[in-house]
Amino acid sequence: MRPVGILGGMGPEATVLLMQKVIAAVSAEDDADHIPLLVDQNPQVPSRIKRLIDGTGADPAPVLVGMAQKLQAAGAEALAMPCNTAHHYAGAVQAATSVPFLDMVALSVAKARDLAGADGRVGILASPAVRQVGLFDAALAKAGLTPVYASDETALLTAIRSIKAAGPTETARATLHAASHTLLNSKACVQLIACTEFSLIADVLAEGAKRVDTLDVLVEAIVAFSHSTEDEH
Amino acid sequence: MRPVGILGGMGPEATVLLMQKVIAAVSAEDDADHIPLLVDQNPQVPSRIKRLIDGTGADPAPVLVGMAQKLQAAGAEALAMPCNTAHHYAGAVQAATSVPFLDMVALSVAKARDLAGADGRVGILASPAVRQVGLFDAALAKAGLTPVYASDETALLTAIRSIKAAGPTETARATLHAASHTLLNSKACVQLIACTEFSLIADVLAEGAKRVDTLDVLVEAIVAFSHSTEDEH
Repeated sequence: MRPVGILGGMGPEATVLLMQKVIAAVSAEDDADHIPLLVDQNPQVPSRIKRLIDGTGADPAPVLVGMAQKLQAAGAEALAMPCNTAHHYAGAVQAATSVPFLDMVALSVAKARDLAGADGRVGILASPAVRQVGLFDAALAKAGLTPVYASDETALLTAIRSIKAAGPTETARATLHAASHTLLNSKACVQLIACTEFSLIADVLAEGAKRVDTLDVLVEAIVAFSHSTEDEH
Repeated sequence: MRPVGILGGMGPEATVLLMQKVIAAVSAEDDADHIPLLVDQNPQVPSRIKRLIDGTGADPAPVLVGMAQKLQAAGAEALAMPCNTAHHYAGAVQAATSVPFLDMVALSVAKARDLAGADGRVGILASPAVRQVGLFDAALAKAGLTPVYASDETALLTAIRSIKAAGPTETARATLHAASHTLLNSKACVQLIACTEFSLIADVLAEGAKRVDTLDVLVEAIVAFSHSTEDEH
């Protein structure tokens, strides 16, 4: 099996959740059946929220590039990054490395395309930074899909910050549930969980919503890559 | 904070549990307050059980040495290995690297010494390999402590194998509880959980047992090292 490098720590709990999901995705008889990962659990990557929303703070790009190069040097044959907002810097990471980058944004849009109806409306449950930088917009447009952003962005950002500080709370769960419900009323049935903090509470989506959890999409790609041969990739 | 390298994957769930405990051990306002880790989640390390109990299979030592050197090269300022049995190879890892090795065996014996009574009896809940190679014996003797091994080793090994294959099961929990109860009847009140698979079900120890979970001891050492300055280490 081929080792996959993880640009992690954004936040650290989301990285751990990814690792749990990778373990759960494999039917194992013993340790050796599990997927090898090289994980840079680096919670000191400059805050994407501070940089992109608050307009203060250091540029995360050079740090992410350094992590990616280090993972490749250590033997990672592909790279993955369990943080949606950090995909704003995916181009820099790809330009600085020569192994495949398992792009959570592109893969998730493809999954949403499979599930979306003729109207192509896709709800986005994410940090406001995701809308502000248009992280999903080009990929969605190319797939003939229209993003519908949650209206109460401030509440969602507060929920993300509280999860980063205190783990999943009832308040954060209620906020995400309400946002999902509003999106459903806006006829956005397919809903992208596009923040790995929300992946920690992904079970709270409104009844009737078709969930695409970007973290699950990434897990699937990691397992498939690790099981692939060099000829396939 | 100083990054700590983790020789992981033995098994992968125990490594994830270690990472969860490291997150939980820190009071964080944001991602950046958490401990940086470089994790080699390598479930393909040759089986310690096959090598030490079955007498077949490849030598894990060269693989562990390679992982340790890679982690040091990637910037790890100390190393930790969340697998008790693999500490049989700790000497080889230390000889091949020049950063501190946070020795789970030595640290756990020190903790047991603090808790043990005058009779110095310490129960060991572990893989039979731990007894067979005498992993804890020298350190316990030096601390004036006497190991009391669980009598039904075959049942414990079956439980470890089932946890590695299927995660924590009720049967595995019942086995560990029974072994803890028997140790208590043998007047071994202080009980070392000396297999990271058992750390996954550490809550089942018999009432009255004083638990020393080797994984918790290692977590404490990792957090303390990461917060230390170079002068202190």
